[in-house]
Amino acid sequence: MKKILKLFENDRFAALSNIEVVDISPGKAITRMEVSDMHLNSIGTVHGGALFTLSDFTFALAANSHGTVTVAINANISYLKAATKGVLTAKARELSVGGRIASYTVDVYDESNDLICVFQGMAYRKRDKISDMVDYSD
Amino acid sequence: MKKILKLFENDRFAALSNIEVVDISPGKAITRMEVSDMHLNSIGTVHGGALFTLSDFTFALAANSHGTVTVAINANISYLKAATKGVLTAKARELSVGGRIASYTVDVYDESNDLICVFQGMAYRKRDKISDMVDYSD
Amino acid sequence: MKKILKLFENDRFAALSNIEVVDISPGKAITRMEVSDMHLNSIGTVHGGALFTLSDFTFALAANSHGTVTVAINANISYLKAATKGVLTAKARELSVGGRIASYTVDVYDESNDLICVFQGMAYRKRDKISDMVDYSD
Amino acid sequence: MKKILKLFENDRFAALSNIEVVDISPGKAITRMEVSDMHLNSIGTVHGGALFTLSDFTFALAANSHGTVTVAINANISYLKAATKGVLTAKARELSVGGRIASYTVDVYDESNDLICVFQGMAYRKRDKISDMVDYSD
Repeated sequence: MKKILKLFENDRFAALSNIEVVDISPGKAITRMEVSDMHLNSIGTVHGGALFTLSDFTFALAANSHGTVTVAINANISYLKAATKGVLTAKARELSVGGRIASYTVDVYDESNDLICVFQGMAYRKRDKISDMVDYSD
Repeated sequence: MKKILKLFENDRFAALSNIEVVDISPGKAITRMEVSDMHLNSIGTVHGGALFTLSDFTFALAANSHGTVTVAINANISYLKAATKGVLTAKARELSVGGRIASYTVDVYDESNDLICVFQGMAYRKRDKISDMVDYSD
Repeated sequence: MKKILKLFENDRFAALSNIEVVDISPGKAITRMEVSDMHLNSIGTVHGGALFTLSDFTFALAANSHGTVTVAINANISYLKAATKGVLTAKARELSVGGRIASYTVDVYDESNDLICVFQGMAYRKRDKISDMVDYSD
Repeated sequence: MKKILKLFENDRFAALSNIEVVDISPGKAITRMEVSDMHLNSIGTVHGGALFTLSDFTFALAANSHGTVTVAINANISYLKAATKGVLTAKARELSVGGRIASYTVDVYDESNDLICVFQGMAYRKRDKISDMVDYSD
């Protein structure tokens, strides 16, 4: 898990969005993002792109949690409720994994535990192992 | 069109991603994003979240191009080819508009004119007019 | 609920697919489909179209369960495991409802309780009431 | 191409839906479906499941057109306009193919050339060749 987290430390787009990892275990991941001005769109609600980035990053953590390098091939997001402030929590869970394709659902909640968006992601599992990609020297 | 562009100037998440508007006309929009380090994920390719943000912003421009405030309700993105550098161009076109729901496709190309991702977005049209939302005083 | 079921009795495509309603309550629906030769594609597994029809019908039941006429505007289905025989059970649940848009997830299981596919559907709620559409005379 | 068509002749769900193949070439396919009572839902418009089956079948033809066995892993459909009668035409085109994953768009038009729905499908390419699957003896 440490190696996986190390890999994701390099993820500048997630860092830029101010996303923090709360928990990661095989097939699962939880993250959080405190809404700030930079996440808001022109009508004052959290940007679809910011919600997607939060969901997508959490999906990637869960998809890579088995130590195999994966890449996203498709994602679908449905926006259910507008968010404007507070901390958003994203929870990814694995629906299936087997062979080259794995599938995940991510639910994003606000502080009232209302569902803000649902994300469905499919990943392609490459032959590479994450342990081979991380440089131990630093 | 000026009012619509003015509205989107407030879009901090798009600005953060370094997205520029190339063209906007009724039902259409074109944008560009020069790939830099901040867009890259941990395996050195453009982040799914960055490609989504580019597509989603272009979709929003096209969806709001008629002067009616719209909000995204669903988006689907398929990643076709990994991008690593250069300028990406996103082109949004309207598939249907009528009543409360409108639908758009966004194609993102790299400099070799290869398709990087396709995005399908649905928008809900509110009763508000964009012209009522922009403050002329500033 | 009787009126809603009456409305769906006219659904010839679902009838053709041999789908039975197990349960319907506000925001929820459960159906079943016994796999037979007509559901199989050319490689002997249950046709994507048959799985979609099962999911979509169950989504429609849940979406119409409040007595307001709804129409599907978008659907996304991810195929997780090939099904070849036995009874498939579809369970729809409401993720959000409010204003004109409602959102649902449908999970389809085989007899081993393995997830065969997940379906995400969005519906547009019209102004019509189902009670006004059903003819009591027959 | 003959072998591919032969394979799809066994597709009972498509046959049941009264779908005809108009044309098939590498990466492309065109089909048609004449709307009849069986395709209509309880409010008298063409069933989402029928439109999906038409799109999905056309996608499968295009995806298998290269002679490699493929299976659908994800599909997204957006409904743009209600159809009630006449002949619907579905056109599938390949967006990308390479390695194990291929991606397709299907547009469905009515007789007025209005877009009824758009379908985005992803396929996984297996190692099997279609030529090995078809029995020449019959």
